[in-house]
Amino acid sequence: MNAVELIIKKRRGEKLSREELAFLIDGYCRELIPDYQMAAWCMAVFFQGMDEEEATALTEIMAASGETADLSEIPGPKVDKHSTGGVGDKTSLVLGPLVAAAGVPVCKMSGRGLGHTGGTIDKLESIPGLTTSLTRRQLMEQVRRIGIGIAGQTQGMVPADKKLYALRDVTGTVESMPLIAASIMSKKLAGGADGIVLDVKVGNGAFLKTRKEAEALVRLMVQIGNRAGRRTLALLTSMDQPLGYAVGNALEVREAILALRGEGPADLNEVSLALGGRMLFLAGRVSSPEAGEDLLREQIKNGEGLRRFALMIEAQGGDGRVVDDLSLLPQAPVRREILAEQSGYLTEIDTEEVGRIAMRLGAGRMVKDAPIDPAVGLVLCKKLGDRVEAGEPLAEVHCRSEEAADEAGWSYLAAVRFDAQPQTCPVILGDIS
Amino acid sequence: MNAVELIIKKRRGEKLSREELAFLIDGYCRELIPDYQMAAWCMAVFFQGMDEEEATALTEIMAASGETADLSEIPGPKVDKHSTGGVGDKTSLVLGPLVAAAGVPVCKMSGRGLGHTGGTIDKLESIPGLTTSLTRRQLMEQVRRIGIGIAGQTQGMVPADKKLYALRDVTGTVESMPLIAASIMSKKLAGGADGIVLDVKVGNGAFLKTRKEAEALVRLMVQIGNRAGRRTLALLTSMDQPLGYAVGNALEVREAILALRGEGPADLNEVSLALGGRMLFLAGRVSSPEAGEDLLREQIKNGEGLRRFALMIEAQGGDGRVVDDLSLLPQAPVRREILAEQSGYLTEIDTEEVGRIAMRLGAGRMVKDAPIDPAVGLVLCKKLGDRVEAGEPLAEVHCRSEEAADEAGWSYLAAVRFDAQPQTCPVILGDIS
Repeated sequence: MNAVELIIKKRRGEKLSREELAFLIDGYCRELIPDYQMAAWCMAVFFQGMDEEEATALTEIMAASGETADLSEIPGPKVDKHSTGGVGDKTSLVLGPLVAAAGVPVCKMSGRGLGHTGGTIDKLESIPGLTTSLTRRQLMEQVRRIGIGIAGQTQGMVPADKKLYALRDVTGTVESMPLIAASIMSKKLAGGADGIVLDVKVGNGAFLKTRKEAEALVRLMVQIGNRAGRRTLALLTSMDQPLGYAVGNALEVREAILALRGEGPADLNEVSLALGGRMLFLAGRVSSPEAGEDLLREQIKNGEGLRRFALMIEAQGGDGRVVDDLSLLPQAPVRREILAEQSGYLTEIDTEEVGRIAMRLGAGRMVKDAPIDPAVGLVLCKKLGDRVEAGEPLAEVHCRSEEAADEAGWSYLAAVRFDAQPQTCPVILGDIS
Repeated sequence: MNAVELIIKKRRGEKLSREELAFLIDGYCRELIPDYQMAAWCMAVFFQGMDEEEATALTEIMAASGETADLSEIPGPKVDKHSTGGVGDKTSLVLGPLVAAAGVPVCKMSGRGLGHTGGTIDKLESIPGLTTSLTRRQLMEQVRRIGIGIAGQTQGMVPADKKLYALRDVTGTVESMPLIAASIMSKKLAGGADGIVLDVKVGNGAFLKTRKEAEALVRLMVQIGNRAGRRTLALLTSMDQPLGYAVGNALEVREAILALRGEGPADLNEVSLALGGRMLFLAGRVSSPEAGEDLLREQIKNGEGLRRFALMIEAQGGDGRVVDDLSLLPQAPVRREILAEQSGYLTEIDTEEVGRIAMRLGAGRMVKDAPIDPAVGLVLCKKLGDRVEAGEPLAEVHCRSEEAADEAGWSYLAAVRFDAQPQTCPVILGDIS
């Protein structure tokens, strides 16, 4: 077996066997196969694709390339949730405490965000004192004790993905369905969960712009998960506008707390319950996703979700009083309303641009490991389908200076469109199992 | 401009501009663009192709990446010939002296062969004493004095092709039409000829197996040459059997001398005259390729071609008496006839295998710079369409040992097929201009 033969085999559209894929991936990790051969192979995969069996084998080989988490110390089935990423997505902060309150342990290892706004870890770290740098031991102990823990991803997991992703990023081979699916799912497999709920975002704020490509990806990921022995369910959700109103780390924590109090935005509530309900279902806690949603609603009503969030914050060194007193969250010194210049129905929000506005304010990273500003961001006042009168506030900027507010204001006004007729925009677009 | 954007542009099937191609090729030669990015780009080119304009720009940029030959010291138009390579192809040795004798200077820089049998340089060097290591100055002086010189390719020419070819070889991207065409034509452009005659081989002994792909390549190369300002003509010729009877370096020189004496095989004669006639036509020496062929036939009849070959051999340090005394060529100690085991018409020769048999005897190289044995090889006795009776000799092996003769014999018998009916096999398949 040699790498050139395998590249040519894939180039011809043939399927590589598990042994052949292992030869490539293991060889690449051990630096026996050079970057230039993997780059050519990735481009051949881009054009020729992979069927579900081949993509599953690739995913499993990648998952096994480094450390894997053993969650067996935590009793009962473990279920993980993964989102492909979007603007204003704080569902993990809402459904995590609710699922834990409903009796299913939540043991989450998340990444930091790159670009747009921060990831779940960055959002959590905007809570004063809170750390996500937990050892495996600390995380396990915490989950056993209070049912929930969210920690930063450990370095040693899925090194094949780290190496391959870095290569794809500089060789124009990011946009390959099987490589994307294998990248995401290999981390989920290594994370050790028995069940996986996927939230695949589609729209102008997601990396998947069309429903067709999102559906192809989600079906492939669900197949990979199930073939790899993990029950996997997925939702296709809209990212044609931010989820909820808040975009920015502390602002999103604030909105998640409101949701846990039963005062959150409808779309955030809907997606969080739908995903969380599926987690309860996969864990065997309830007999249907709908029953799961009902059980989660109870955890909002009885305050158990909010209480569980406070417990988690305290366990990770943060100030748990924040769930009752939102003023304890970091506040930006400048707040400015962005006023509508015309009347009409809001029909379009360039969501990726909203993410970039927040990033420019300091809420996200342009380069790896850059510091982020927890307090800044945008809070929308109007969402798609809403009636707006000229002069009404469209959004509120939270920032460090008047200049930053000016820039964000102009940019935001250029990112929205109005029409004479409203249009409906459902948040859940599909349900794949 | 950055490499990733250009890779993605090509991946999408868009055309790169001359500036964009120069950014890639020059950046690659200066090691500003790494192998892995060029590998991904090559694979994208494999799938998306290039139109003639883009392929021409690539070729010209590659040609300009290093030294280029200035042939202006030699009076009159200069015409070069290039073959895509095949088994038993000694046309350069036949048409070179004939074209020179007809009054058109022949100033050839050739490569050594890799695999199969040797290249033109290796064949020439089987003549005792002859060297092809001429400086540019020596070559020019020789061509001005006697009208012909054949030297090894200088190191400094077309470094972009050397680097890119080595990368394609290890990344499964050799078989791309525009990359093959640019590789060949960039060397021709850098070689400085005003006119180019191409001999594109197709068949089971050529790297192009089907007529369709050979026609696509030849049309692209002719377009590139003409767009780059060099009059270019091409022939498509059959490589479903060796050209002539002899395969092996000194054996091929012997056959070329026979051809110059007017005693050569018909197919070698036909291809040599057709290519040479086109060279005379492109040089403006005659008014049509056919008139060129006639003029070359005269150079055979009047012995001027043979005399010119002797002059060249002497000028390059060799023993010119070889043209009159073939026994001065290296002789292999063992000669063995391979006898037919059945009767019938010879209908198939696995020509690539014939090349490999010669290589295993020592006539070709498996790795770069390996020594070759000038004396060994095969001389066919029967060609496609010939009637063979069981027990008649099919070919003669020239080798170093009885064991080598045994191996070559078995292999050759396995490489041929017989049928009850003969079939015609024209050597010239097409004429592209």
